Amino acid sequence: MADDFKVTPWEVTGDIDYDVLMKRFGTAPIDDALLKRISKYAEPHPMLRRGIFYTHRDFNVILDEYEKGNKFYLYTGRGPSGNTHLGHIMPWIFNKWIQDTFDVNMLFQMTDDEKFLFKDLNVEDTRKMAYENALDFVALGFNPDKTKIIVDTENVKTLYPIALRVAKKVTYSTAKAVFGFDGESNIGRIFFTSMESAPAFLPSEIEGKPTNVLIPAGIDQDPHFRVTRDVAPGLKYPKPSLLYCKMCPGLNGGDKMSSSDENATIYTTDTPKQVKKKVGRAFTGGCVSVDEQREKGGNPEICAVFKYNYYLFEHDDAKLNEMADKCRRGEILCGECKVALTQKINVFLENHQAKREEAREIVKNMTFEGFKW
Amino acid sequence: MADDFKVTPWEVTGDIDYDVLMKRFGTAPIDDALLKRISKYAEPHPMLRRGIFYTHRDFNVILDEYEKGNKFYLYTGRGPSGNTHLGHIMPWIFNKWIQDTFDVNMLFQMTDDEKFLFKDLNVEDTRKMAYENALDFVALGFNPDKTKIIVDTENVKTLYPIALRVAKKVTYSTAKAVFGFDGESNIGRIFFTSMESAPAFLPSEIEGKPTNVLIPAGIDQDPHFRVTRDVAPGLKYPKPSLLYCKMCPGLNGGDKMSSSDENATIYTTDTPKQVKKKVGRAFTGGCVSVDEQREKGGNPEICAVFKYNYYLFEHDDAKLNEMADKCRRGEILCGECKVALTQKINVFLENHQAKREEAREIVKNMTFEGFKW
Repeated sequence: MADDFKVTPWEVTGDIDYDVLMKRFGTAPIDDALLKRISKYAEPHPMLRRGIFYTHRDFNVILDEYEKGNKFYLYTGRGPSGNTHLGHIMPWIFNKWIQDTFDVNMLFQMTDDEKFLFKDLNVEDTRKMAYENALDFVALGFNPDKTKIIVDTENVKTLYPIALRVAKKVTYSTAKAVFGFDGESNIGRIFFTSMESAPAFLPSEIEGKPTNVLIPAGIDQDPHFRVTRDVAPGLKYPKPSLLYCKMCPGLNGGDKMSSSDENATIYTTDTPKQVKKKVGRAFTGGCVSVDEQREKGGNPEICAVFKYNYYLFEHDDAKLNEMADKCRRGEILCGECKVALTQKINVFLENHQAKREEAREIVKNMTFEGFKW
Repeated sequence: MADDFKVTPWEVTGDIDYDVLMKRFGTAPIDDALLKRISKYAEPHPMLRRGIFYTHRDFNVILDEYEKGNKFYLYTGRGPSGNTHLGHIMPWIFNKWIQDTFDVNMLFQMTDDEKFLFKDLNVEDTRKMAYENALDFVALGFNPDKTKIIVDTENVKTLYPIALRVAKKVTYSTAKAVFGFDGESNIGRIFFTSMESAPAFLPSEIEGKPTNVLIPAGIDQDPHFRVTRDVAPGLKYPKPSLLYCKMCPGLNGGDKMSSSDENATIYTTDTPKQVKKKVGRAFTGGCVSVDEQREKGGNPEICAVFKYNYYLFEHDDAKLNEMADKCRRGEILCGECKVALTQKINVFLENHQAKREEAREIVKNMTFEGFKW
C-alpha cells in the first residue's frame, strides 16, 4: 500500500509515504548530525526541525565548501501555471532563510516554457502568470542585491547554450526512464529537463569557476535534478546539492495543496473572507458532535488545520505541541482551531499583500540580464 | 536496387534515385507547366531548366498569392559544421535568383545548435563556423536591405516561443518515424526540428499577418519541413512552400559533395593551386589511354567534371550540349575538360573571395535583431 503513489514533477497521486519516496529516489535523510552541523550557522528553521525539509543530496558538500570560504548559489523556481498559493511559497520561505543564514546569491527560475508544454495554456498566459508569481516571491523579502529572477522565454539566450550541452548528454531512453515519457509525449516536454538543469550550472558560468549550487525544492523535482547531477561531471560542473521538502498539504486533507481544488487552496491574493470560508471548510477529522469531540478528542495527525500550523503558521514548538495535546484531550474544538488559523493566515496575508504591492517596483531590479517585465 | 539509399537531414547514403525519392517523400515534380508559369517572371534559372531544383511542395500557392499582390518570404539555411564548399552555395545561388526575380525578403538560418547536437563540436566551434559560412552567403550578393541572418543560439529568444508552439504539436512517435530516432538519440536532437520550423513561421509574426514562406533547399531537408507543414494549420500559420534541389555531387563521382572527402570537395577559400589539384584528380569515367578515349568517347552522365559544368559552371545550354557531344565522340579529352573547369572555378572563386572579404562589413548589418558577430 505504501508503494501505491506516484510523485513526478507533473503529477502527484496517491498517499505519499515520504520515507518510501526517499528510498525510491535514493536521497539521504536530514538526520540529527546534519541538523547539528546546520546549528553552527543558525537555529535550524522549523521546516528543518519538523522534517518538512527532510531529505537531501550532498548538502554536506555545500557546508564543506562554505567552511573553506567557497560560497554557493541558491537556485529554486516555479512553473507559472496559475496564481500563487501557500503550497508554492512554503519552500520559498525556506529559501529565504537559507539566503539570510548564509548570505548567498539566489537564482529563481520561472519555467513558463514548461507550463506551456505541459498544460493547456498559451505562451502569453504563462508569461503573465510568471509576473504574478514573481511578485509573491519578491514579497518574501529576498535580498534584492543578491537575487535574480530568470524567465525561461526571456532569458533563453543565457540558458539555451547550457541546456544544449545538457541535452547532448541525455538520451531519450534516460528521459523515458526518469520521467515516464512515451510515444505520445511532445518533443518539447522531452527536451524541457535541459532547461531546468541550466540554472544549476549557470553560477559556474557567471563566476567563471566551478561554483556549488544548492537547490531547496519540493521532492517532486528530484527527477530533473537526478538528470542534472548525472550530466554534471561530463560538463565539468559541480553536481548541484539538494534539500527537498514534502508537499504542502491541502485544506481538504490531501497530500498536496493544488489549484485543482480551489476550495482547499489558499491563494496569496485571497481576501480575509475567502480565507475564513476555506479554513471553515477544512478537513479536521473531528467528531460530528461537540460532546463526542470533548470525550474522544481529535487527531492532529490527519487534521489539515493542524498541518497548516505545523507547516507554516506556528513556529513555536512548545505552542504547537500544546495545541496537539489539547486537541487529543478534547480540550479544544475544531471550530476554535479554525478561527485561530484563519486569523494567523489573514495576518500573514495582510502583510504579504502589502509587500506584494511594493514588489511591483522591486521586481524590476531583480530580473536577470536587464530584462524588463 | 533503386530503393537502396537513404536521405535524411543528417545522412545521405547509397546511390540516390531522385525520382524514387520524390515519390517516397510525396513531393510534386517541377513540370513544364510550372516552368512556363515561372517564365512570366524571368527566364527560368539553369538549375530549374536542368532539373537540379526538380521537385516542390505548393510552389503554385506562392505564385497564386504573389499574383494577388501578397509577397512571400524566402527562408533557407545552413548547419555550420565546417568550411563552406560548392555544394553548400549551390542552393544559395538559386535563392539569390529567387530574391532578385521576386524582390522579396529573405531569412537565412544558421543552425549552430543542430550541429552541436549532431556532431562532435562544441558551441564555440559552431559559432565560429557560422560566421565563416555567413561570409560566403553574403558574398553571393543578397539584397542587404531585405536579408537577415539568424543564428540559432544568438536569436533563440525570437525563435524559442515559436519553437515551443511547434514542439507542443509534435509527438516523439512522429519525430521517431520522420527522422529515425531511437532510445540512444539525445533529447536535444529530438527537439531540434522545432527550431528549424520556427523561421518558417517567423515572417507571419514579423508582418503581423499570415505570410507565405518559400524554402528553396536540398531535398534532404524535407523531413523537417514535412513536420513544419503538418503543424502549421494548428498554429494558424500558412504551410511553407518548398523548392527542392538534388545534392551537389562530389568530384569523386559520389552523389553528394561532402567534407568527409576533402580531396573531392572544393571549398570557397581554396587556392587556385588546390582547385587545380582537386579537379585534376576528379572522377571522369574516362578511358585509360588517349587512343581508347578518342575511339570510344567518354560518358558525361557519370563524369564529375561534366556534372560541375551542368550544376554550376556552364549556364549556356548550347555550350553544355556541345561539351557532352564532343565528349561522347571522343573529340575532347578528360584532361582538357579538367583544365577548362579548373579555370572556370578559379575565376568564380577569385571573384567570390573578393566579395567574401567585403562581406565582413556587410554581414554586420544583415544580422537579425541587432545581434553583432
